[in-house]
Amino acid sequence: MSQYHPLTEAEAIEIARTINEVFPTGEELVSKEIGDGNLNLVFHITQPATGASLIVKQALPYAKVVGESWPLSLDRARIESEALVKQGELAPGLAPRVYKTDNELALTIMEDLSDHVIMRKGLIEGGVYPKFAEHISEFIARTLFFTSDLGMNQQEKKRLVESFINPDLCKITEDLIFEDPYYDSPNNNIEAHLRDAAEAIWADEELKLEVAFLREKFLTNAQALLHGDLHTGSIFVTPDSTKVIDPEFAYYGPMGFDIGAVFANLLLNYASQEHWSADEAARRDRRAYLLNTIRDIWTLFEAKFRKLWNEHGADRVFRAPGYQDSYLSRLLQDTVGFAGAKTVRRIYGLSHVADIDSIPDAGARERAQRLALSIGTSLIKHNRKAVSIEDLLDIASAAVAK
Amino acid sequence: MSQYHPLTEAEAIEIARTINEVFPTGEELVSKEIGDGNLNLVFHITQPATGASLIVKQALPYAKVVGESWPLSLDRARIESEALVKQGELAPGLAPRVYKTDNELALTIMEDLSDHVIMRKGLIEGGVYPKFAEHISEFIARTLFFTSDLGMNQQEKKRLVESFINPDLCKITEDLIFEDPYYDSPNNNIEAHLRDAAEAIWADEELKLEVAFLREKFLTNAQALLHGDLHTGSIFVTPDSTKVIDPEFAYYGPMGFDIGAVFANLLLNYASQEHWSADEAARRDRRAYLLNTIRDIWTLFEAKFRKLWNEHGADRVFRAPGYQDSYLSRLLQDTVGFAGAKTVRRIYGLSHVADIDSIPDAGARERAQRLALSIGTSLIKHNRKAVSIEDLLDIASAAVAK
Repeated sequence: MSQYHPLTEAEAIEIARTINEVFPTGEELVSKEIGDGNLNLVFHITQPATGASLIVKQALPYAKVVGESWPLSLDRARIESEALVKQGELAPGLAPRVYKTDNELALTIMEDLSDHVIMRKGLIEGGVYPKFAEHISEFIARTLFFTSDLGMNQQEKKRLVESFINPDLCKITEDLIFEDPYYDSPNNNIEAHLRDAAEAIWADEELKLEVAFLREKFLTNAQALLHGDLHTGSIFVTPDSTKVIDPEFAYYGPMGFDIGAVFANLLLNYASQEHWSADEAARRDRRAYLLNTIRDIWTLFEAKFRKLWNEHGADRVFRAPGYQDSYLSRLLQDTVGFAGAKTVRRIYGLSHVADIDSIPDAGARERAQRLALSIGTSLIKHNRKAVSIEDLLDIASAAVAK
Repeated sequence: MSQYHPLTEAEAIEIARTINEVFPTGEELVSKEIGDGNLNLVFHITQPATGASLIVKQALPYAKVVGESWPLSLDRARIESEALVKQGELAPGLAPRVYKTDNELALTIMEDLSDHVIMRKGLIEGGVYPKFAEHISEFIARTLFFTSDLGMNQQEKKRLVESFINPDLCKITEDLIFEDPYYDSPNNNIEAHLRDAAEAIWADEELKLEVAFLREKFLTNAQALLHGDLHTGSIFVTPDSTKVIDPEFAYYGPMGFDIGAVFANLLLNYASQEHWSADEAARRDRRAYLLNTIRDIWTLFEAKFRKLWNEHGADRVFRAPGYQDSYLSRLLQDTVGFAGAKTVRRIYGLSHVADIDSIPDAGARERAQRLALSIGTSLIKHNRKAVSIEDLLDIASAAVAK
């Protein structure tokens, strides 16, 4: 079976049966393919007699997006699997357990998280996740710090950079986030009523200069092993638990890209609150919850990151007075900029978000879209001037007040 | 013969004989081992009957410096060889031709350049190289531009980053340039009369903060494939020809590190002019020649780099108005900072330069050393404020005038 081919359900069951720690007994296994079929096969394997279960995820050798199909390296399955293992080691309990990896078959067998909900869906349904800021700040602080030159052996770090070279997946980000939205590209997915807003962005030279700086950082700044796609669709939650999944975009890049991704997706949900037209107070409360979550994440992240640095800093040169403060300042600025770029592209780029696209009322959807574009472009333009997380929150608040 | 072992002269001759383009006829070959024995064996193979010759260079699995010996990866021979080939393709005529590589034996068979002189020696002897600025600016502009995200396919660039991961050699730079000189490290090689100057640097927090920023760039900023050790001992010259050799430190790093290395070594020679105490006018002329060479290199480099960008720029996002100017400004600042760091470490770090150490008069040598430290530390402190190459030249002139 070891030569690559897309698995049948029978084969997925056969492989799942080898995971003794989940299925120590021989009762029947049942498979259900639950992937969206665009990038991966995802088999949910259960043992009805015991209630035990796991996930078999297999990469497909192509990507299908809006009907197009292009080849995509199967090496991404190795990268995803190695990133999951690394993240699980560095942030225990915050990534799914990996039971087995098979690089030849491009598959990872891992913990079943079907008792969790995808956070994007949870937020759309009005869910509240009181542990989320604590958990995600822990995840980003520990995975970023301990894979960076600040927190690990700097020669071993270079070997990690080598194993996480990820051209195919980085190309998707470079195109869809740092290029297409700023040109009249056929990859964009622009609703007719937003064309004027897109055209205004294409003509905005100040904005495009800042996008060039952000693109440069994404291309060259090998700070830490990133998740690379840390939106709310890559996070499973319950009120008590957070699990970060799907790190197939993992590579060595600028830390602010991961933090900015979390903030952008909370801001997209913030913008989507336009559809609650019936109850202004509830809408205001929901938005306050989202902004407070962003503030909490940054505040907790910064405190944890500084503590890790002070306790586990691997480099005495980086103890120079003022350096840590400068590092965190620049990281905040990167975070603000990347949050902006990740917000803009979700409104009229190739790939949108359900938070906004699922708003049934056309007027409310358009208001949400324009609000998100206003926040996103303001963050991009402000990024190198940001001095505090309050700058980001003020931009979000001011955009609503307009 | 293919399993690794240090070659005998007879074996070196046997391998050289396979290079038909140099030795098409069967006459006798003669070998002379001309390496310094610390890092590599270097066999100079000649054919007396025809006058043909070549170099067989073989990496040794250890480094010997001031009596110490530590293991060093043989993979550096592959890196050196691949870098030579790449640089030769991108900057034709400015790197030695490579005839053959054998990664198993860690050897490179290449063009014999014994009609050239090592530039450091040439400068010490008062040589003038009217083509040097033209040639070296061409070398750095083309090798840096065409290996960067500005000038090549950005997915292929990631594969180059992967093949030039070079932990062992980077570690030497990280220690000897970006750490040891700023601490009372046993790796330093401090003459007793300079101890006060070293101690002043160890106590200079402003300076050490700037060194932390430079170290960060060296560790994380994968801008271009660097030579990695571009001092005047890695450059062969004649009045008409320039050949850059020994790129075993090649890796993806910040462009300013290569340019700064050239400038630092011209500035070290500039500082060494203290020994010409007999003739003030000749000394002034020599210093003017060195500063003019630096100015010419930067001016030519900048013009060539901008022209390459305008004609071969591979990325439309980087055409944003203002971006190219910002890129060159930041590159100049990096260059100033790295030039400073590469100057300081040569005065009391592990490895000095003959320009200064060979000054016979103790008083003149000390004046040269203090002058170099003054220039180096000023460049480091000024780097983020530099706006023009004149800033660097002014610092060098002002240090002499003190």
